[in-house]
Amino acid sequence: MTDDRNRDELHFLPLGGSGEIGMNLNLFGFGPKDRQDWIMVDCGVSFADIYYPGIDLLMPEINFIEERRDRLLGMVITHAHEDHVGAVVHLWPYLKCPIYATPFTAILLRAKLEEQGLIDQVDLRVIPLGGQFSLGPFDVEYVSLTHSILEPNALRIKTPLGTLFHTGDWKLDPDPLIGEAVDSVMMGAIGDEGVLALVCDSTNVFNVKPTGSEKAVRDSLIQLLSDKEGKIFCTTFASNVVRVETLARVAEASGRHLCLVGQSLKRNVAAARAAGYLKDFPPVIDEDEAGHLPANKVLFVCTGCQGEARAAMMRIAQDNNRNISISRGDTVVFSSKIIPGNEMTLGRLHNHLVEKGADVITEKDAFVHVSGHPGQKELIQMYNWMKPDILVPVHGELRHMTHQAELGRNHGIEKVIVPRNGHRIRLAPEGPELIDEVEHGYLALDGQFLVSAEDEAITSRRRIMYNGGLVVTLVLKPDFDLACPPEITLMGIVDDDERGITPYITKHILDRYDRLPNRVLRDDNSLKEEVRIVARRSCKAFGNRETGPVTIVNILRPNG
Amino acid sequence: MTDDRNRDELHFLPLGGSGEIGMNLNLFGFGPKDRQDWIMVDCGVSFADIYYPGIDLLMPEINFIEERRDRLLGMVITHAHEDHVGAVVHLWPYLKCPIYATPFTAILLRAKLEEQGLIDQVDLRVIPLGGQFSLGPFDVEYVSLTHSILEPNALRIKTPLGTLFHTGDWKLDPDPLIGEAVDSVMMGAIGDEGVLALVCDSTNVFNVKPTGSEKAVRDSLIQLLSDKEGKIFCTTFASNVVRVETLARVAEASGRHLCLVGQSLKRNVAAARAAGYLKDFPPVIDEDEAGHLPANKVLFVCTGCQGEARAAMMRIAQDNNRNISISRGDTVVFSSKIIPGNEMTLGRLHNHLVEKGADVITEKDAFVHVSGHPGQKELIQMYNWMKPDILVPVHGELRHMTHQAELGRNHGIEKVIVPRNGHRIRLAPEGPELIDEVEHGYLALDGQFLVSAEDEAITSRRRIMYNGGLVVTLVLKPDFDLACPPEITLMGIVDDDERGITPYITKHILDRYDRLPNRVLRDDNSLKEEVRIVARRSCKAFGNRETGPVTIVNILRPNG
Repeated sequence: MTDDRNRDELHFLPLGGSGEIGMNLNLFGFGPKDRQDWIMVDCGVSFADIYYPGIDLLMPEINFIEERRDRLLGMVITHAHEDHVGAVVHLWPYLKCPIYATPFTAILLRAKLEEQGLIDQVDLRVIPLGGQFSLGPFDVEYVSLTHSILEPNALRIKTPLGTLFHTGDWKLDPDPLIGEAVDSVMMGAIGDEGVLALVCDSTNVFNVKPTGSEKAVRDSLIQLLSDKEGKIFCTTFASNVVRVETLARVAEASGRHLCLVGQSLKRNVAAARAAGYLKDFPPVIDEDEAGHLPANKVLFVCTGCQGEARAAMMRIAQDNNRNISISRGDTVVFSSKIIPGNEMTLGRLHNHLVEKGADVITEKDAFVHVSGHPGQKELIQMYNWMKPDILVPVHGELRHMTHQAELGRNHGIEKVIVPRNGHRIRLAPEGPELIDEVEHGYLALDGQFLVSAEDEAITSRRRIMYNGGLVVTLVLKPDFDLACPPEITLMGIVDDDERGITPYITKHILDRYDRLPNRVLRDDNSLKEEVRIVARRSCKAFGNRETGPVTIVNILRPNG
Repeated sequence: MTDDRNRDELHFLPLGGSGEIGMNLNLFGFGPKDRQDWIMVDCGVSFADIYYPGIDLLMPEINFIEERRDRLLGMVITHAHEDHVGAVVHLWPYLKCPIYATPFTAILLRAKLEEQGLIDQVDLRVIPLGGQFSLGPFDVEYVSLTHSILEPNALRIKTPLGTLFHTGDWKLDPDPLIGEAVDSVMMGAIGDEGVLALVCDSTNVFNVKPTGSEKAVRDSLIQLLSDKEGKIFCTTFASNVVRVETLARVAEASGRHLCLVGQSLKRNVAAARAAGYLKDFPPVIDEDEAGHLPANKVLFVCTGCQGEARAAMMRIAQDNNRNISISRGDTVVFSSKIIPGNEMTLGRLHNHLVEKGADVITEKDAFVHVSGHPGQKELIQMYNWMKPDILVPVHGELRHMTHQAELGRNHGIEKVIVPRNGHRIRLAPEGPELIDEVEHGYLALDGQFLVSAEDEAITSRRRIMYNGGLVVTLVLKPDFDLACPPEITLMGIVDDDERGITPYITKHILDRYDRLPNRVLRDDNSLKEEVRIVARRSCKAFGNRETGPVTIVNILRPNG
């Protein structure tokens, strides 16, 4: 035991992304268990679904590493997608470690840090593609892969106990258009040098077909859109700069001017140019000018491929853009996939567009999109290159990670471990082994406040949205008589015109009140609880609902 | 004009289902425009999405026909799916007309009417398959088609101004297992006799592949599940009695006992038997007995293929079934599709199952489901049979109906009209023509109350779920001084431990209150509005949120 406590160990500990697609945050630790040095790989957000009403962003809770921030050597960002970098501006103030990123990622991150007034405090170190650097016992090397954004990187992390290959988000695009296809000789060589553990993207593990290349999408879109008569609108993920360049080529090929609609598109194109990409990008025209061109002379690239309410595509569809409108004969292409959870919103958007007479084309109708994540064929290729001792599927819900685990086992990887957020896993020596489950959870950004995702305000909203809210206010005289009738405030509760819910609840409260002993009347907490129960129950009974409203009782004693 | 007012016209008027998939409710009118006789075809509900929080069911608003109920000759139900029959028990009390249905549908409907205490009032007339009856100028004939439920019927409706063919929900299943494949000779004959208007299901119009048959699913499931070792769980739509019978055959073929879990399964099987179907259905064992059998000796058919919280599948996955549990090596088959909007819930359910070590098989992994609606090939076949003068796509969102309209035009139907709920369309003479838009909308069932879906309670819940609620109560003395500090009640609003939102809001209210003129202090409405604005604004500012909470102000004047 004494030996064990002092022996160096290599640990893996995800705080986000192992159990959900989104908010990737992974820790690697090295050293004796109780005093390890740590590096963080990625620091991302998730977009909250309706389970967190009123919340835009979720991110991992980081108490574990915050308590050890003296030993956090750095944050290494693989690429600029929000689910890998979006939490940096929110969580860095609690960590204050150096941040490492490649040029394009760094440009976008710097802009965010500036917006938050953090830029002067952060030590942001820009590493060239393929660059290497050391963080204590970790020798880190950026390895260029392909994905759906510029500069997607895997990390090769050498440690005295073995080498880790952390893929980040990736696919094998034979023709990514910007950047090179993945170098199979180099990948094979990395595997030959020895990989202890492969930590690998699980997003698309259910996909059995080849993923396809950006070049193929470009060819398809040029052919599909070359002979359209009306306006062309295309929406895609703004961060997919290659796709945006493809749409610029489509515009050129069809003799149209290019107009970018939406701030994030402009921001990403500008960042790409600042990083040295898009040297041949055609001139873009502004919305005002585009609005005055003949229909067959303009191609709009729009933000909002997920139907986001405030993004360009939805605003145009709802006639909320001053310069741009859609009419019969126009074509709208969704060069994107539907992110699960957005089906209803996108259905509504498609209906708006069809109502205006537009021809809506999605990936179901034509080849207009490829994914950025590896299907089974690519995963197997990666296993063949890396020949890891250990496979650690990450970046997935449990079903995705479990499925990748099975795939890895079926392809000869003997040691496979499916992590969950908070699992502290020893990779070496004698790994993999789950050795601890540390504090973990979600934080929610509510306006300016970063609170626990289980904050009472959020759980309360969740209950109110289904069952409504009821506030009862009693004003008591010193002799415990009511100074006025109970004030009943309904929020989101259906009333009945004929009978009226307020008199019904009031009657039940008064009936109960009259029978309360003095000891209850004297004690606000007891009184509140007695009234709360009768008010909630009567409200529920009146509406014949299965659950009562969130009920709060106020006791006021003006002269007390 | 005088002539016009007295001439007979044939009208079509959908109040539900033309603009959404669900809540089908169609009216056909015959006679001079101002005094037509009406029949209603189907009377269905929709399951509400999160846009209607706290609401389970939506259905069409029926003011138009309620005002004319003296001339509503009958309600004709095509089949027993909820989106065709589910609103009968809620809307019939406002209409009180006879109801027509085939035997299986009638058995299920009778049970619902009994549950609602309506059975003694309703004139429910059971029509045999292929039966005919007259309703004033409408001669109605049930025409058996195939779908995903027993006894799916189209209606041939002959009128003095031409014949209507209303498809209901349908597909062309070459081997439906129970009932016959669609009789192409009969269908061709119907077309040859002349069809003025084809009113046709649009649900699957984007599907370019053949739909497939129940027989093929049966063969596939028997093969897929014959050699499993652990328990087998299958979930499907409870109303798909043929599929349930298929699962009984799977159990037989693999030497397993059959256990039905969930009331609606048992109800549908019992209704099918009462209607003379399922004569060879094997004995079923109860949950208690099944729980004691070896894993490879039992097959569970469960309700809840959409991940419904209270249905069997989710309850079992969450360990909430006393007798039945899932463990490593078990197989769970979703013999169903994902209804749009349920993706997240089903993802969570799959994760629960994977966590227990089950192998989850969905229609993405194996051939375990076929749809009940026609794809493009079947629609074209229907056009070829019916050769209608007019095509009226229904049962779809606008994008589905518009797409079917295009399909119909491309296949030689010259007159096509895409209706919207509330559109009163003259089919003859000189149709189709949109002649009026009548009152229409949605009703929501909230507990026992049927209210407008735009009821303030529902819109209020929608706002509170995102922004929280704030109630301010002021107790005023006769001299307008406050008898106690403003009472601030927060519902679903994030507070800040250090500074505290309540003192912040209180201060802003008091600052404003002190500067209010007497004329405002004397008038409750003015005072409420002044305080509401300052309270809402300060709450919004404190949290730095983009939108303020739903804010209600109470003014109490105990001695006033």
